[in-house]
Amino acid sequence: MTAMSENSSFNIAERVEHFVRSIVTPYEADDRRTAHGPQEELVHELRAKAREAGLFNPHISAGGEALCHREMVPILRASGLSPLGPLALNTAAPDEGNVHLLSKIATGSQRVRFLEPLLAGKRSAFLMSEPASEGGAGSDPTMLKTIAHRHNDTWVINGRKAFITGFAGAEAAILMARTDRGDGKMAATMFLVKLPNSAIHIDRVPVTIDNSMPGGHATLTITNLIVSDEDILGAPHEGFAYAQLRLAPARLTHCMRWLGAATRAHEIATEYAVGRRAFGKSLIEHEGVGFMLADNRIALKQSELMIGWCADLLDTGEKASIESSMVKVAVSEALFSVADRCVQIMGGTGVSADTVVEQIFREIRAFRIYDGPTEVHKWSIARQIARESERP
Amino acid sequence: MTAMSENSSFNIAERVEHFVRSIVTPYEADDRRTAHGPQEELVHELRAKAREAGLFNPHISAGGEALCHREMVPILRASGLSPLGPLALNTAAPDEGNVHLLSKIATGSQRVRFLEPLLAGKRSAFLMSEPASEGGAGSDPTMLKTIAHRHNDTWVINGRKAFITGFAGAEAAILMARTDRGDGKMAATMFLVKLPNSAIHIDRVPVTIDNSMPGGHATLTITNLIVSDEDILGAPHEGFAYAQLRLAPARLTHCMRWLGAATRAHEIATEYAVGRRAFGKSLIEHEGVGFMLADNRIALKQSELMIGWCADLLDTGEKASIESSMVKVAVSEALFSVADRCVQIMGGTGVSADTVVEQIFREIRAFRIYDGPTEVHKWSIARQIARESERP
Amino acid sequence: MTAMSENSSFNIAERVEHFVRSIVTPYEADDRRTAHGPQEELVHELRAKAREAGLFNPHISAGGEALCHREMVPILRASGLSPLGPLALNTAAPDEGNVHLLSKIATGSQRVRFLEPLLAGKRSAFLMSEPASEGGAGSDPTMLKTIAHRHNDTWVINGRKAFITGFAGAEAAILMARTDRGDGKMAATMFLVKLPNSAIHIDRVPVTIDNSMPGGHATLTITNLIVSDEDILGAPHEGFAYAQLRLAPARLTHCMRWLGAATRAHEIATEYAVGRRAFGKSLIEHEGVGFMLADNRIALKQSELMIGWCADLLDTGEKASIESSMVKVAVSEALFSVADRCVQIMGGTGVSADTVVEQIFREIRAFRIYDGPTEVHKWSIARQIARESERP
Amino acid sequence: MTAMSENSSFNIAERVEHFVRSIVTPYEADDRRTAHGPQEELVHELRAKAREAGLFNPHISAGGEALCHREMVPILRASGLSPLGPLALNTAAPDEGNVHLLSKIATGSQRVRFLEPLLAGKRSAFLMSEPASEGGAGSDPTMLKTIAHRHNDTWVINGRKAFITGFAGAEAAILMARTDRGDGKMAATMFLVKLPNSAIHIDRVPVTIDNSMPGGHATLTITNLIVSDEDILGAPHEGFAYAQLRLAPARLTHCMRWLGAATRAHEIATEYAVGRRAFGKSLIEHEGVGFMLADNRIALKQSELMIGWCADLLDTGEKASIESSMVKVAVSEALFSVADRCVQIMGGTGVSADTVVEQIFREIRAFRIYDGPTEVHKWSIARQIARESERP
Repeated sequence: MTAMSENSSFNIAERVEHFVRSIVTPYEADDRRTAHGPQEELVHELRAKAREAGLFNPHISAGGEALCHREMVPILRASGLSPLGPLALNTAAPDEGNVHLLSKIATGSQRVRFLEPLLAGKRSAFLMSEPASEGGAGSDPTMLKTIAHRHNDTWVINGRKAFITGFAGAEAAILMARTDRGDGKMAATMFLVKLPNSAIHIDRVPVTIDNSMPGGHATLTITNLIVSDEDILGAPHEGFAYAQLRLAPARLTHCMRWLGAATRAHEIATEYAVGRRAFGKSLIEHEGVGFMLADNRIALKQSELMIGWCADLLDTGEKASIESSMVKVAVSEALFSVADRCVQIMGGTGVSADTVVEQIFREIRAFRIYDGPTEVHKWSIARQIARESERP
Repeated sequence: MTAMSENSSFNIAERVEHFVRSIVTPYEADDRRTAHGPQEELVHELRAKAREAGLFNPHISAGGEALCHREMVPILRASGLSPLGPLALNTAAPDEGNVHLLSKIATGSQRVRFLEPLLAGKRSAFLMSEPASEGGAGSDPTMLKTIAHRHNDTWVINGRKAFITGFAGAEAAILMARTDRGDGKMAATMFLVKLPNSAIHIDRVPVTIDNSMPGGHATLTITNLIVSDEDILGAPHEGFAYAQLRLAPARLTHCMRWLGAATRAHEIATEYAVGRRAFGKSLIEHEGVGFMLADNRIALKQSELMIGWCADLLDTGEKASIESSMVKVAVSEALFSVADRCVQIMGGTGVSADTVVEQIFREIRAFRIYDGPTEVHKWSIARQIARESERP
Repeated sequence: MTAMSENSSFNIAERVEHFVRSIVTPYEADDRRTAHGPQEELVHELRAKAREAGLFNPHISAGGEALCHREMVPILRASGLSPLGPLALNTAAPDEGNVHLLSKIATGSQRVRFLEPLLAGKRSAFLMSEPASEGGAGSDPTMLKTIAHRHNDTWVINGRKAFITGFAGAEAAILMARTDRGDGKMAATMFLVKLPNSAIHIDRVPVTIDNSMPGGHATLTITNLIVSDEDILGAPHEGFAYAQLRLAPARLTHCMRWLGAATRAHEIATEYAVGRRAFGKSLIEHEGVGFMLADNRIALKQSELMIGWCADLLDTGEKASIESSMVKVAVSEALFSVADRCVQIMGGTGVSADTVVEQIFREIRAFRIYDGPTEVHKWSIARQIARESERP
Repeated sequence: MTAMSENSSFNIAERVEHFVRSIVTPYEADDRRTAHGPQEELVHELRAKAREAGLFNPHISAGGEALCHREMVPILRASGLSPLGPLALNTAAPDEGNVHLLSKIATGSQRVRFLEPLLAGKRSAFLMSEPASEGGAGSDPTMLKTIAHRHNDTWVINGRKAFITGFAGAEAAILMARTDRGDGKMAATMFLVKLPNSAIHIDRVPVTIDNSMPGGHATLTITNLIVSDEDILGAPHEGFAYAQLRLAPARLTHCMRWLGAATRAHEIATEYAVGRRAFGKSLIEHEGVGFMLADNRIALKQSELMIGWCADLLDTGEKASIESSMVKVAVSEALFSVADRCVQIMGGTGVSADTVVEQIFREIRAFRIYDGPTEVHKWSIARQIARESERP
């Protein structure tokens, strides 16, 4: 990253912040919404405004390449200042992560058929996690049960998937399934699929505590889905490696967006605490409230620094698997505490939908679980510490 | 409380528990609900079943008197095992607290016109808190702005109220307003009002994070509401004293109901942790999960003991103002941690509405604010400690 | 426990409290102390005063029997108001727990030779835990390595012990060693030993963070210690069962004493917060300080209630193994937070030995580990939850 | 800071780390110690070794200037890997902070008489805080009571000071006293004083929970201390401004040293957890332990990042008053949790002085109070948030 590009990414971030604050936040009160997120119509309207402002895909350079992670930090953070921001700007999960993965390993033909539509605003899904109730891959990817069998020149895929964000309404998917590498070892392959596809059935879309993701988090049954070799993403049997390639950056962009959301909640709670009085003085003059805001400021700064540290690591080519786990744990837990304190400071208003703080609280609650619950990441970190200690 | 009555209250509690588990919980999936709680039709259906089971008003003795607080503990806890339980059984706030207050200080005529309908299942509201945005009484009752002027033989009341639980759909209200005692000191009086009343207008019912209370939490404007002397509840100018009479027990019954709710969440999370596997063993065999369940068990026991302690104090005639603040803080914070851990243990399922755990998490989040946020109670406790220390 | 005995135990508790506050606390500044606790001379002086006040062994009835656990609560709590209190009154660990165990299972002859001297003020030790560095029984008793072989008519014992509180200066010990029951299963037996004994060598007495226990916590080597059958405590091969018999009550009396200590710290911190001013008002008027004292009051009450609950269980004959684990975890963690807040409130004075708060902080830090660290108890609780869930 | 200087400071840090680990840590078991820290003889011996290794004053460049803060981070962290490290290397408080202040504002003559001896290894003190018990300046500098009166051509100083680290044994002091600026406003001046001085009497040196600072933390009475104008440090009446100049960097170097100490504790606890077994596997394989080590790793990284952020701010000339408060709070609280978890992981060994973990736990406990308790810093941060919110 050159000084110029940094400047430039900061300029973009400022423009994104201005756009989100002035154009997007008024839509937070728009009642065109479903149990899972804003209606598609509202998303289209927001995206038209972002295109108009020249800010659609702000994290993608003119040449179609994603900016480096460090450059992305302020941009994705700014987009997250409203739960609607990432949808407006096309920086939302899972599309942003899918774009990242496709841009790394898709063939030329795959780029035309899959990457370009995503950059144009079509939605996509990432089909990896499976129903824990059936012993499938929840947080433990080695339990992957969806399987792709070789049949003549094609692959035939069967299985079930769960918690597939944004599937309803998506026009493309990256699907992960077990494949037989011939050496008896567990292997997996990533396949590209156009949607909707009659071989993939939405069993249900559970109502969840969060509602910023159109399409929700679907449970799917895949029955005899046929995929050809040309729709294998990357090399066959390398699915776990690619998943790692996607996971660490995807965790990090999640952190960036939620950092924006928690920052917004903190601003609203601060304004509330400055403006309201109780027991003879403004709320913020009460140490009980002021200390909570001080804790927030510290937590937001720590989160920003952790994200920046990991972004730098990724930009130097590190896999940063453990480091991104550290950041995911630290940031999701810290930002949840921020959101929780904001709710508490605002009292009755805090638990009402009168401000977006209530939604941000719910969204970040889910974030402590999405992309791997805190405990799974801690376990990965602990094993890494054990490994390091055993080295001579 | 005699040994017999205790036995008897335990028998009732067991019957209530059986009723809630077998009859009420299946209704949790019923989609007859509004943003604020179940539809009235569903409430009526549930209440019919409770009457049929002889368990409507299980906390009221045959003679129409409320059981003592110690006896209530297991009954209200059992009713709270489902968010629908208190509605089914008529043990929900604010009715349960209003019944308590009316049974203590209502005149014979008031009992007929106000208490009896409540015992028969009519809903009621308690109009005390006011919009913080206008400097009214939020957590600080001395900021009461709603005022009752004496005009000829009647009272004329004007003001605004906020966060009035269950107002929409209620048929009676207890209303608190400032009155002039003639000595220049702040005084307040409680008035009884039949609803609906054209002098009380619902400005709005904010959407809130909780949704177990039909009618939600309304904001009201009161314009020239006329009340006669016979509808003063208790003595004039004694409103603050009566509020204290209602507040401590009401805090405690809240704790009892939420103890039931958190217990239920813990049961569901335990069943989940025993039944699901990850990384080669059941979830509960992972210390990361097992320790959370151990923390839950400890927190539930502590909450039960704190509630029992305060119930005993109230039963001996103590005001227990500070003690009930201690219990409110300890129990609401502990049970929120329980609910949060349950969500976390259950991963994606925990943040979905597939089980009632997700709702219980949201309800108990609000409980940390309703009936006085944690911080306001801590401040009361701190002042009490200071007062005690200053005694010679 | 009759009402009369309760009265009586409360009277004793009041007298103990008065004795500790007026007679014992002035000795806290006495510099007759070692790295491990007060010098024996000081202990003797304190005990003489307790005898004079008729309060030596206040937890033992006139008939020589221990009071029930519920009766002990206020007495042991009162004794713990000073770290020197339990030493003065003969209510300290490990003697108090050894007296309890001996009074349950010692033979007549053993009572004369072992129990009576303890009641007269001789000190004793309990030799169970072993050096973790050698794979011995730390928190995991099944790892017991000290072994007793049958040789002719006697037992020959070899092994190492660690963290043996009060060994230096003790005149008797209960020793736990593996024995061969003949069925191939792990078994252990408890032996009684007069001290000093040339077959037991003190390898070292580590300096530890706590210093209220004369003799410290020794590491021992046992070489060909000969014990006859008549010095077996209880039945052979039943050591693990007797250990359980001792452990739950011993955990609980620890909690009682530390409850007293934390209460004292809270009193000192409160007095400090009332008397000192900063930034224009007394410390306690700062919410940052007042909230900490409020948290203390809640934590102290919760601890008292948890202790009382478990005492009642033990008094009805329950083993209360899991319940005493719950209490140990809850109380040690809560009281440590109390002590930590007291230190923090008092600033520079809090970390100085000018008041006993600094010592209490260190003592309770150790308490989170002694008698089983928090994590080991949580694991026991978690397994119990799992077992219960698996029942049909 | 150029790339070269950075390289160079990293080289120094590596050499310091090697020196501390190989040469200093063996002295941790040396019993030449007092209640307040190592004996002077031991300090001299360590310093001789540091000089021999060319590492005495590693944070001062060849030209006698302090390195920039960013460069200091790895060096002071490395020095802190042992509690004896900063003493060996002359990077300890209060000398390091005094050197910093003198190098900024001392006159040429003052540099010769005060700065150079400090760089040569003489010890010094900083006399600002006063006895809280007398209403003096504890955490609130505006309560400063020590006063300097103009008398003829000199200043006559009277007052009391408390918690004066390293006074016993120091050969120079910076003393802060109120002075009359003539405008009726509170002002203060810094004076330089050679020690020992018969006008400054050590009333007492309280025993404290920490013991890494020779000379302890003394309480002093100053009686008619005469100081001439040439020994005013900087301009008269500017003491509060200079105090700020010293405070933020001093807070930060404290954080650097304690980061080293907590890192060391974490290493020792990790080694313990890898090497010891319980319940059938190594401790680190227990999630209960592994998660604590994972939390440690996150906390250490967050602390490092917070320190680096504030160092950069100071290096660009910012006062960083609020930012250094944020760092002090975040780092002291995080590192205390690290130390507490290390103690807990190590069980009985953790609370014994067998490893330096026990001492580090006690030192960092004090650090949450020294240089301003957490609560005072939070209040500063809260007021800053309020000020920012009030800006148009």
